[in-house]
Amino acid sequence: MTLPTPGFSFRVGAHDGSARCGVFETPRASIETPAFMPVGTQATVKALTPEEVASTGARIILANTYHLWLRPGAELVAQQGGVVGFMKWPHALLTDSGGYQVFSLAKHRTIDDDGITFRSHLDGTEHRLTPEEAMRIQALLGSDVAMVLDECPQGGAPRSVVEQAIARTTDWTKRGLRVPAAEGQARFGIVQGGIERDLRLSHLQTIAALEVDGVALGGFSVGEPTSAMYDVLADIGPKMPADRPRYLMGVGTPSDLLRAIACGIDLFDCVLPTRNARNGQALTWGGRVNLRQARHRDDQSALDARCDCTVCTTYSRSYLRHLFKAEEMLGPRLLSLHNLHFYGALMRKAREMIRDGELGPWTRATLAQMRDLDEIVGFQG
Amino acid sequence: MTLPTPGFSFRVGAHDGSARCGVFETPRASIETPAFMPVGTQATVKALTPEEVASTGARIILANTYHLWLRPGAELVAQQGGVVGFMKWPHALLTDSGGYQVFSLAKHRTIDDDGITFRSHLDGTEHRLTPEEAMRIQALLGSDVAMVLDECPQGGAPRSVVEQAIARTTDWTKRGLRVPAAEGQARFGIVQGGIERDLRLSHLQTIAALEVDGVALGGFSVGEPTSAMYDVLADIGPKMPADRPRYLMGVGTPSDLLRAIACGIDLFDCVLPTRNARNGQALTWGGRVNLRQARHRDDQSALDARCDCTVCTTYSRSYLRHLFKAEEMLGPRLLSLHNLHFYGALMRKAREMIRDGELGPWTRATLAQMRDLDEIVGFQG
Repeated sequence: MTLPTPGFSFRVGAHDGSARCGVFETPRASIETPAFMPVGTQATVKALTPEEVASTGARIILANTYHLWLRPGAELVAQQGGVVGFMKWPHALLTDSGGYQVFSLAKHRTIDDDGITFRSHLDGTEHRLTPEEAMRIQALLGSDVAMVLDECPQGGAPRSVVEQAIARTTDWTKRGLRVPAAEGQARFGIVQGGIERDLRLSHLQTIAALEVDGVALGGFSVGEPTSAMYDVLADIGPKMPADRPRYLMGVGTPSDLLRAIACGIDLFDCVLPTRNARNGQALTWGGRVNLRQARHRDDQSALDARCDCTVCTTYSRSYLRHLFKAEEMLGPRLLSLHNLHFYGALMRKAREMIRDGELGPWTRATLAQMRDLDEIVGFQG
Repeated sequence: MTLPTPGFSFRVGAHDGSARCGVFETPRASIETPAFMPVGTQATVKALTPEEVASTGARIILANTYHLWLRPGAELVAQQGGVVGFMKWPHALLTDSGGYQVFSLAKHRTIDDDGITFRSHLDGTEHRLTPEEAMRIQALLGSDVAMVLDECPQGGAPRSVVEQAIARTTDWTKRGLRVPAAEGQARFGIVQGGIERDLRLSHLQTIAALEVDGVALGGFSVGEPTSAMYDVLADIGPKMPADRPRYLMGVGTPSDLLRAIACGIDLFDCVLPTRNARNGQALTWGGRVNLRQARHRDDQSALDARCDCTVCTTYSRSYLRHLFKAEEMLGPRLLSLHNLHFYGALMRKAREMIRDGELGPWTRATLAQMRDLDEIVGFQG
């Protein structure tokens, strides 16, 4: 099935309940879905080379428009072939709109119906982000997929605030789509609505009716109870467009991903696997492993005996723990590689289970093994 | 030529003036000399995997006895096959005696003729290092080459202090050698004497007369003028044992290495290539490159067009600078790989030039290209 933007297509190959597996084709990559997109905030997936990131199975990564716009600057990146040319990533790229970081990182932001004025968290300089500017910057960054600018209210915001954010996001989406698309760049629209099911559903219908190449769910994992997110996902996931990629932004834990896949989600991004890695927390088929704990001091076993990544087939838990205790850079590096490898393996296995019609039993068995994983707080950003 | 310890040999294959190239065989590696040993202080060459370190040409690395003794502990390391088993380094290892770090890092140290009492810089616990204890710990660490305990006076110390350090080092060397050697572990003695030529020469004769497998020069690059080191090296380098490896400890810059090779030195170690990498300083065939400088902002050229490492064949100076400006871990990682690759290439080329009898002209031409390199202060530690 071709998508509105030339060069892009999405084909669903199998269903299992509401879950589906398919292939999202961009000019740069053929992405099997469900897929996890590692986060390369500043044109680098922290601590890893592009070659290593690709070795985890990733064929699309996310970069942050806000960060790259402010440093080193979108024009500089454009001169070097966009983000993929700059960082030498050989596959596809999605850029966010910059809005989320403006809300979470920038100083003195003021929002009006036209856009957002803020000061850089780096040097205090004033900038203005509008739907049109978000498109201009992402065209310079040269991503395969650009996100339209949205307004993301905080978790637990009153219904009236959520309604205003929805109205603004709809208007901004239309304005973003009026900007002529950069060649080879698809545009995804974002659905807001917090955990209010009726608002989510009506905004989904609004966004899906526009000429977007994919539909994203924003405004999750921003402080609301996880169970509330699951309830909304179960309701609206299956109602998202069948013929376009569905993207759940900034989510989440392995458990979040498996549950969202069951609701029909195709794409994910999250800093959790790399951020937790830098804090010494591994995600494994057996659950969370905090390598700083004393119980790993003499443990010569692999981090995860069921994992075939080079970290698990080479080093002992004892050595990995030593690297973290000694504050050695190799610790975060190796754990980032393992965690992304685990996320890649989880997606690969989920696709296989969907094709086999075994997603439900496999998900239940897998979640039971990962008994600790629900305790991890999801991250967005 | 076999060395005193079974399983070790050293064979000189070619001479060029006082310089020589040869092969130092240990049970774990065949090391072509002159060779540079990357420093893996805490059982990791900072930011790099063993595979990457080996890719730079290194076949022997150095680990620090002081650090590993205090954390994670020599017994724990011994249980996991020594340092090489713990960190999965597939080639040879040299451990220092621990003395240098006790002098430079530990708190409240008191030295007497029997040994040194000090408090750990990590947790303040009291420890005692003697020549016998240094051997015991290094046997647990399982290095191919252990260093005997020496006393290293500060640069510029009065002659009487240097004389006392020499007397103690001689006594400690004899005591260290009386400890039965661990299987497969050679022992190198250390020559002190600061920049006093007569003291250096007489101590060299004393140490060389003992049953050591190699002779090291300690106490250089500790604050003395570089030219004074070169003067002493020119005098005593050629007088070091012809049939055993000669090791200049803690030195140095590329220029230091080339000059010392001309004086007949075979082995080097230094934190400079990896430490400077973490500060954004690359060492190249064209001299020093500080990647933090604004002039690299838009520079799409390779870090060093004459270097064939993956960093130079993949990334632009502009991207590498961005990684340092954005404080991304990938910056120190990539630059560490390049710098060690450059040191490896420098040693490889020096060996080739010695075999071709072209070391002198090549060294002069190389140093002229690296016009800035002499400004780098050498590091030991």
